[in-house]
Amino acid sequence: MGKSETAAMIPFQPCTSRGGVPFRAARPIHFSLIRPAMSKFWSPLVNRLTPYVPGEQPKLPNLVKLNTNENPYPPSPKAVAAMQAEIGHDGASLRLYPDPSADRLKEAVAAFYGEFGIGARQVFVGNGSDEVLAHVFMALLQHDAPLLYPDISYSFYPVYAGLYGISAETVALDGDYGIDLSAYRRANGGIIFPNPNAPTGRLLPLGEIEALLTANTESVVVVDEAYVDFGGDTAIALVNRFPNLLVVHTLSKSRSLAGLRVGYAVGHPDLIEALERVKNSFNSYPLDRIAIAGAVAALEDRAWFDRTRNAVIASREQLVSDLTLLGFQVLPSAANFVFARHPGRDGAELAQALRQRSIIVRHFKAPRIDQFLRITIGTDEQCGALVAALKEILG
Amino acid sequence: MGKSETAAMIPFQPCTSRGGVPFRAARPIHFSLIRPAMSKFWSPLVNRLTPYVPGEQPKLPNLVKLNTNENPYPPSPKAVAAMQAEIGHDGASLRLYPDPSADRLKEAVAAFYGEFGIGARQVFVGNGSDEVLAHVFMALLQHDAPLLYPDISYSFYPVYAGLYGISAETVALDGDYGIDLSAYRRANGGIIFPNPNAPTGRLLPLGEIEALLTANTESVVVVDEAYVDFGGDTAIALVNRFPNLLVVHTLSKSRSLAGLRVGYAVGHPDLIEALERVKNSFNSYPLDRIAIAGAVAALEDRAWFDRTRNAVIASREQLVSDLTLLGFQVLPSAANFVFARHPGRDGAELAQALRQRSIIVRHFKAPRIDQFLRITIGTDEQCGALVAALKEILG
Repeated sequence: MGKSETAAMIPFQPCTSRGGVPFRAARPIHFSLIRPAMSKFWSPLVNRLTPYVPGEQPKLPNLVKLNTNENPYPPSPKAVAAMQAEIGHDGASLRLYPDPSADRLKEAVAAFYGEFGIGARQVFVGNGSDEVLAHVFMALLQHDAPLLYPDISYSFYPVYAGLYGISAETVALDGDYGIDLSAYRRANGGIIFPNPNAPTGRLLPLGEIEALLTANTESVVVVDEAYVDFGGDTAIALVNRFPNLLVVHTLSKSRSLAGLRVGYAVGHPDLIEALERVKNSFNSYPLDRIAIAGAVAALEDRAWFDRTRNAVIASREQLVSDLTLLGFQVLPSAANFVFARHPGRDGAELAQALRQRSIIVRHFKAPRIDQFLRITIGTDEQCGALVAALKEILG
Repeated sequence: MGKSETAAMIPFQPCTSRGGVPFRAARPIHFSLIRPAMSKFWSPLVNRLTPYVPGEQPKLPNLVKLNTNENPYPPSPKAVAAMQAEIGHDGASLRLYPDPSADRLKEAVAAFYGEFGIGARQVFVGNGSDEVLAHVFMALLQHDAPLLYPDISYSFYPVYAGLYGISAETVALDGDYGIDLSAYRRANGGIIFPNPNAPTGRLLPLGEIEALLTANTESVVVVDEAYVDFGGDTAIALVNRFPNLLVVHTLSKSRSLAGLRVGYAVGHPDLIEALERVKNSFNSYPLDRIAIAGAVAALEDRAWFDRTRNAVIASREQLVSDLTLLGFQVLPSAANFVFARHPGRDGAELAQALRQRSIIVRHFKAPRIDQFLRITIGTDEQCGALVAALKEILG
């Protein structure tokens, strides 16, 4: 899972200057959202697409940017050094194609999960976990029976389903905004869910996923673990027991490399082979030389990984405590964000009041969650600024 | 167009050590080529795919590598500096997502073609021209009438057609291995061809493309100009007159950035919008921060671009002359490679004899072209080594 989940649930809203904060408007990606463009030159499919709209990336500095779940800490210094070394003094290596199969990176992913007995043949890599997921939808989730995913979840899932003409059914979260996996025990052509889920942050224990896999053996189960490094146990531990399990990861969050575009999937070699076939029918070289070098070094630097994710976890616990003291209801989070609502104040109004104070959080105008704010865990300083602003707003 | 065109025409051949040259075998990308794998978990489509097989990338140094049309010169020093600056001392910018629409790069492409009045809204960018082409096939070439392309051409075209279920018909090259555009004046759902074509290197004059566009107004015409900077006139000059023309470029060849993965397309905003819709239904952020920075700087450095491509052109003219003196028939080339055959010697044997001397060229076991060698233009020193080896082989 990528980044600004559920963005596509709401129509695009340009953020023009208001309340004295001179935001540069986040521009829509498509003219299509503004004018009803159609063309005889388009493949018929294009007219039916409802593309994903990524989260706002304001270009103004000095914002407290807590809206797209980026890591507040820089990537591993070893990754930085590896990327600089790949470029070298004259960039000469860049004139040559990268390794199309990125073997070094697959080996580094396998080594990282060595405790689970993962081999490089069980690893697929791609241009961010969004590209990995796109290939997963095409290669593994296109069947007669409907694909199942949560009604409140990563909003790219319905977009992929639309792109590939996959029939899909959503399964409602339970009353506590949790995923109830027992509701997925019905005829399906595949199951996909994030763990922890977004935008809720709620985590499923591995035992519940194992129970689903034990019951659901005839279709692929994809666990999208973009945020699992901030508090969950990875289902990669189960890969060697369930040939229909695929686990998807990104280096964007827990490795602070959103700007580099690297994701991966781990599963049975048969599942990986389907992904390779689709990938090699689409683009032979999705990962450039610098991305491969940086990703390998980032995976090898466990100390930096642990240090930064533990810092994020500690900041989250402090923020949960502070928000609770301010009267917020905060869902239990195992991610690098929290999902919180205040019983006395409207969610949209709170988001707007924060924006006027140069703090951006995420608010979704979607059923059941429109009173919540999704707040990325920043540095302690950024979290402190948020709490101070909320105190002022709440009076 | 990407790189090792027509690779998929021939079955994969591992290059094991022979003749004293200890090549590390180029490994097959797919297990699927070795074992007839199928799985109930695969989408049915996957069983039907015949993926593209990229050209051999031997990992041994000290080869004269003239097989995948890479540029013998490094990229612009300004591109190198821009990439290093983007990484910075601690990689802090990489924790943030890149601009999903890569506006800076679109503006740089538009500026490069300023003489033709191109605006940024007429530019689409992607992860190498292979990804651009994949989106082109899905967004613009999926119609009831058949897609047309040359029978001898970039072998990724039939792979894309297979991936998206597009019906396609090939049009034979003429007796001189040229594209005869008059043969494309028939019912079609789209037309695509490289100019210059690969692996032949032969160039169509812009006037012939203009004549086709004047006659063919009801479907999209894609001109794949991966190699045009080495001797042709770009059809981007025609974009503002023909709303059904799309021109595709790569930074892999004439900008020496095969290792960075950047390509672009230029056309009418309606065509670009279709590509954006598909792209934003597939992967919001295909270009990472470093790739955007490097590509922008490479496009801005016209001096380096002209200097290196002119050096390649000069080396090509010398090589054509040398090969002709050795008795080769060399097709007229406007690319950074030549396509040549010797009337007295078998093509496969020549390629093998060169390989034994640590020189790799490309040989295609395909009808009509199996007596040719496709030779990438290297430095003068590399071309000289090739000519010396051929003299020795020919006796």
